[in-house]
Amino acid sequence: MSILVVGSVALDTVETPFARVEETLGGAASYFATAASLYNQVNLVAVIGTDFPREYLDFWRGRPVNLAGLRIEEGRTFLWAARYHMDMNTRDTLDTQLGVYAGFHPVIPEEYYSSKLLFLANIQPELQMEVLEQVSGVSLSVLDTMELWIMTARAQLTEVIKRVDMLLMSEEEIHQYTNCASIVKGVRQLLDMGLQYVVVKQGSYGALLFGADGTFFSAPTYPLEEVIDPTGAGDAFAGGLLGYLSTVEPQQDGCYSVDQIKLGVVHGNIIGSFVCEDFSIGRLRTLIMDDVAERYQCLVACSHFDPDWRFSQPGQVKTVIK
Amino acid sequence: MSILVVGSVALDTVETPFARVEETLGGAASYFATAASLYNQVNLVAVIGTDFPREYLDFWRGRPVNLAGLRIEEGRTFLWAARYHMDMNTRDTLDTQLGVYAGFHPVIPEEYYSSKLLFLANIQPELQMEVLEQVSGVSLSVLDTMELWIMTARAQLTEVIKRVDMLLMSEEEIHQYTNCASIVKGVRQLLDMGLQYVVVKQGSYGALLFGADGTFFSAPTYPLEEVIDPTGAGDAFAGGLLGYLSTVEPQQDGCYSVDQIKLGVVHGNIIGSFVCEDFSIGRLRTLIMDDVAERYQCLVACSHFDPDWRFSQPGQVKTVIK
Repeated sequence: MSILVVGSVALDTVETPFARVEETLGGAASYFATAASLYNQVNLVAVIGTDFPREYLDFWRGRPVNLAGLRIEEGRTFLWAARYHMDMNTRDTLDTQLGVYAGFHPVIPEEYYSSKLLFLANIQPELQMEVLEQVSGVSLSVLDTMELWIMTARAQLTEVIKRVDMLLMSEEEIHQYTNCASIVKGVRQLLDMGLQYVVVKQGSYGALLFGADGTFFSAPTYPLEEVIDPTGAGDAFAGGLLGYLSTVEPQQDGCYSVDQIKLGVVHGNIIGSFVCEDFSIGRLRTLIMDDVAERYQCLVACSHFDPDWRFSQPGQVKTVIK
Repeated sequence: MSILVVGSVALDTVETPFARVEETLGGAASYFATAASLYNQVNLVAVIGTDFPREYLDFWRGRPVNLAGLRIEEGRTFLWAARYHMDMNTRDTLDTQLGVYAGFHPVIPEEYYSSKLLFLANIQPELQMEVLEQVSGVSLSVLDTMELWIMTARAQLTEVIKRVDMLLMSEEEIHQYTNCASIVKGVRQLLDMGLQYVVVKQGSYGALLFGADGTFFSAPTYPLEEVIDPTGAGDAFAGGLLGYLSTVEPQQDGCYSVDQIKLGVVHGNIIGSFVCEDFSIGRLRTLIMDDVAERYQCLVACSHFDPDWRFSQPGQVKTVIK
């Protein structure tokens, strides 16, 4: 079951308190496609300039990443530069140059039409809507966004939210969009717009899954000894989530079960944690499914506890002691 | 199995973005004793002034809280005032008046000597050391501290850390004390000082347990719809942790098993979440063990997932489809 992603492919310059990389592979769609292609075929829709390094294309060609929807246009690839603060959870954007993205309109190749899973990375809501107009029969559509669109394209973003199944948002974005001080209340407001699921991305604290059916799931996060670069962790999270779902069968009604979605969130956390271990897609290049399985077992061990606890009256305990 | 706590009993004035209370019951030992007395007998050591409202003493007398170690001295009870920021995870201390705490030295009554669990709340490290000099034969000693002592009494705090079994610290406190940007590295430095366990308090994100034996456990937190006042959540966490442990038997070597400690952390999170639902000890007053059991089941449901996932090759899935 193949996965369709539409979003940015970029060249990133990233500075952390400890190191700096220049014009390395970045962009939400790059992280997503590299992550999800560990599980299954990814159909990529994006645009790059003629300056885009050939080595990245060769890398994707060596994996199940379909590049039929990747347009190469005269001009510069999207450039993004940012500097992380000491806590590595917050950053300042230093520069954004749209380049060939300025006039971009996504075109979904016919051979992508059979994709059953869709990830709309954080591009302009009107472009996300153009994608939705071109696809049908998707089992799960997942939407990401960013502060910029909440502030500048709220109405269009709202229309897109009403058309998708799942929304990924950070806590700050939920506060910004809903004006609720309480995340739980904000999520409820979002679910009332017709979403089936809202995933709250919490950076190094993991992710929360809320369902319209009342589902709540708190996925543990893997405790990294060292975060090298958290860029792309949210996109890799989405890659792990949809990658995992692409390996299982939806239910008879065409939808995934809540338990499948939960495991998807666990996989999202796992892949998101690996991404932080190197700059760009460095860690994803070498990642194999055995690494994922090992970290999965770590998360089981570090988050499960006796499900059957019952209170023992202190009096009962004392009797045992005597 | 009774629990000994030494710490502050105070009158708090707390302001949140939504409400304000004046000179209500506060102090780490108050929160701890009220929380832990839900599980078992608590032996309290603290000092109050003659202005301390009688109703709070009557409330504790109605629970298994032993007040033999609570001294009443001429003067004013410890006063603390703080204002919370919009996110409710950070606050400014507006006023601190030690009152009768200025000359306080803890004296452990003989009838407390049989206490098998000890909580050293966040008073001055030299007073915590005075407590350690007076007790022996404790199954688990748990230490809390605060930024003030890390900054002003680092050497004394270090001596206390070397003498206890478990340390509770927030992420900020670990950064401050260890100078490590990485929590995992900071925790390792602390464990190397001889601690058996370090618990990293993460506010609304829950708590992490690290053991000298390599244990790592990430306890889920209950998603509160509304946080009224997070004051005392860390002390109530300790109350839930030691309260739970007081209801189970340590192993033959006198120590608690890792699984018991894990469940203690889960109980800590549960009780900590309840405290935030009202100002002061408001919610703890009415809390019963059925409420705890219900929230425990919620946490099981929202954090456990299939422990036996194995990767299915996409090829295998496709075969099933055809």
